[in-house]
Amino acid sequence: MSIAALKPMTVEEQAITAKKAAKTLSMLTTEEKNEALRITANELEHSYEEILKANEEDLSKGKEKGYDKAYMDRLALTQERIGDFAEGLRQVADLPDPTGDVLSEWTLENGLNVQEVRVPLGVIGMIYEARPNVTADAAGLALKSGNSIVLKGGSSALSSNMKIVEVMHRALEKTKIPKEAVQFIASTDRAATQQLFTMKEHIDVLIPRGGASLINAVVENATVPVLETGVGNCHIYVDNKADVEKALNIIINAKTDRPAVCNAAETLIVHKDWLKENSDQLAKAIKDHGITLHGDEMAADALLNVVPAGEEDWANEYLSLDLAVKTVGTLEEAIDHIDQYGTKHSEAIITEDRETADRFMQLVDAAALYHNASTRFTDGSALGFGAEIGISTQKLHARGPMGLPALTTVKFMMRGNGQIR
Amino acid sequence: MSIAALKPMTVEEQAITAKKAAKTLSMLTTEEKNEALRITANELEHSYEEILKANEEDLSKGKEKGYDKAYMDRLALTQERIGDFAEGLRQVADLPDPTGDVLSEWTLENGLNVQEVRVPLGVIGMIYEARPNVTADAAGLALKSGNSIVLKGGSSALSSNMKIVEVMHRALEKTKIPKEAVQFIASTDRAATQQLFTMKEHIDVLIPRGGASLINAVVENATVPVLETGVGNCHIYVDNKADVEKALNIIINAKTDRPAVCNAAETLIVHKDWLKENSDQLAKAIKDHGITLHGDEMAADALLNVVPAGEEDWANEYLSLDLAVKTVGTLEEAIDHIDQYGTKHSEAIITEDRETADRFMQLVDAAALYHNASTRFTDGSALGFGAEIGISTQKLHARGPMGLPALTTVKFMMRGNGQIR
Repeated sequence: MSIAALKPMTVEEQAITAKKAAKTLSMLTTEEKNEALRITANELEHSYEEILKANEEDLSKGKEKGYDKAYMDRLALTQERIGDFAEGLRQVADLPDPTGDVLSEWTLENGLNVQEVRVPLGVIGMIYEARPNVTADAAGLALKSGNSIVLKGGSSALSSNMKIVEVMHRALEKTKIPKEAVQFIASTDRAATQQLFTMKEHIDVLIPRGGASLINAVVENATVPVLETGVGNCHIYVDNKADVEKALNIIINAKTDRPAVCNAAETLIVHKDWLKENSDQLAKAIKDHGITLHGDEMAADALLNVVPAGEEDWANEYLSLDLAVKTVGTLEEAIDHIDQYGTKHSEAIITEDRETADRFMQLVDAAALYHNASTRFTDGSALGFGAEIGISTQKLHARGPMGLPALTTVKFMMRGNGQIR
Repeated sequence: MSIAALKPMTVEEQAITAKKAAKTLSMLTTEEKNEALRITANELEHSYEEILKANEEDLSKGKEKGYDKAYMDRLALTQERIGDFAEGLRQVADLPDPTGDVLSEWTLENGLNVQEVRVPLGVIGMIYEARPNVTADAAGLALKSGNSIVLKGGSSALSSNMKIVEVMHRALEKTKIPKEAVQFIASTDRAATQQLFTMKEHIDVLIPRGGASLINAVVENATVPVLETGVGNCHIYVDNKADVEKALNIIINAKTDRPAVCNAAETLIVHKDWLKENSDQLAKAIKDHGITLHGDEMAADALLNVVPAGEEDWANEYLSLDLAVKTVGTLEEAIDHIDQYGTKHSEAIITEDRETADRFMQLVDAAALYHNASTRFTDGSALGFGAEIGISTQKLHARGPMGLPALTTVKFMMRGNGQIR
């Protein structure tokens, strides 16, 4: 057994080991990294039986603990899902390598040449919950962009994650990427996670992926810079000049296509004139798709079976077939509501009036703004970024879907022949 | 008196007011912002007498408190220095406006148009020390990039800062920029500053400018994202293939041109073979420029009057005419030393061997890497960025000198005709 992650290293030793490996990794060519990712993909595919066996352990423990069906589903692996990991790694291998790109270059009057060059961040700390696919996906994106990664997955997927990392290490041993570039924290001790929060010297960025409480715990306690991802309380504003068919299609799609994801709609804001005219059609569409409405008084009067909505509904990321409905008289009221309750993720306006749409898109402060389209497009693969490490809901560094460039920083490289000031 | 900043608003009310003003500001044209900056520049120039009077109060309090000469110098204003603020605002007006730039644009197969557009961050919280010029400089950069700013200056410059803000407010009243976009926290209560640290809803980024203890206090206690600036423990590595004249010029320039700034050199790492051959010339140059050396044993043997160096010297940002000297036998030893003690600011190698230089620049993790040039060039105006809000020593968002683009984020704007997933 030579698997570094399974040796009893401390979390700090793991981070230091990862940092050292990052230096080696940063010197590799794109082709060397791509080949390593493809070899790792093959190894994962061939090792599906041992991975499924490890996954069985997690599943039986999960059953004992009485996890619900949705949770068990996220935890469960199949041969096909393992094939998807492998395919994901191959897709990352096919993406362009952002590192080494010269973003800008100029020469000062004194002859000093200045280059701004994209380089890896160094070591990424990834803190996530039950889904074992994140283990392979995140490692793939990190390695392709020249970064080491320290993984801390949810304890309910511990056996699966450890096995996936073991298989990845076995594969990396046949490649130029040092296997030490992928570290997995096997301890389920909460203190182990918290150590990651303040290890500024060894970890360059933390990426938490999961529910609001996980993300808040990281943001509030970390001194290591955080890439905040995730929570989406997304709104669809139906303006009085909205086309009925577009509005209904988009509302139903954004709410029901995948209700549990962050780019699903959670509140419908509707202009009262539009509602008056189209309440029957809206009510029918809502009913046909099994959506439960939580609305204000005017919404309750116009629609059927509306549960009275309170503060908590406006702020709620339901992640279910529930939808809050707020009626407004003006665009400004709609924007004020979004300002107050939105999470700066994805916000849509449905209108045939381009000026109103432009005003909405300029004044609403969010990563992704939509005119006459579903919020469901806020997603790296849907928007054509290739794989994504998460969707940033912060404003610094990266905003919206984060592909490989979000895992890089820059260096300014100055070359001279003795220039002084 | 209608000066918002001088009304007894709470810090939270000031931040909310700034956020509201940021919306108005974000809708202005570049020309409207530029005109406002020019009017403000004129008003500051014309108001020099009242600003100098306010500055007198700070200076006489400073004298009572026995501040040292360097500190008093940073605090002191003259008509000329006020003219420099004004000129700085005019230069910012002349810089290109980054907001509104479409950074990328594409159309998906389904017809959905995607634009990545640069937009203001919103509200910037600026926490700084004694220098009153930061008040006008930071406000100018914030306004030009469409951001409101909440200023918290050092209490020793309180009268000067309040007067500068009063004059700026008077000028802004004649312009399209709402004067509420510039907020100044007049309270000298430490709690007022700390409130800024956690006001995530109203403040988008904190920028601390000053010494290491100020910056660390912000980084450790803030939940608002921080742009970390400043501390520079910069090294010059003189390789065994270094040209003597270039090496001496660069060492002397980087150490003595302005010893108190962050891009000054603090440690000389020197290859022992080069030192053996050139110790006399180096010793003479050091002596001629009044530099005090703190060196390891080999440096002490080769040079004159060397104070023995310890751990604390390698880590020290002297900001004075002191220089640590470390001897090494290989490039790798030099890089290891920088890895251990550097602050990822500016690092230089002097060598005639391009391959060695490339290896140094690739392996050393810092914002600015120099081959055969002085570290003193890490500065927005020296590198041609125009004005800078600070020098980032972090890796996320912005790295190195930060001009106007560092004060922006992006929005993804999607325009469709009913697209759903």
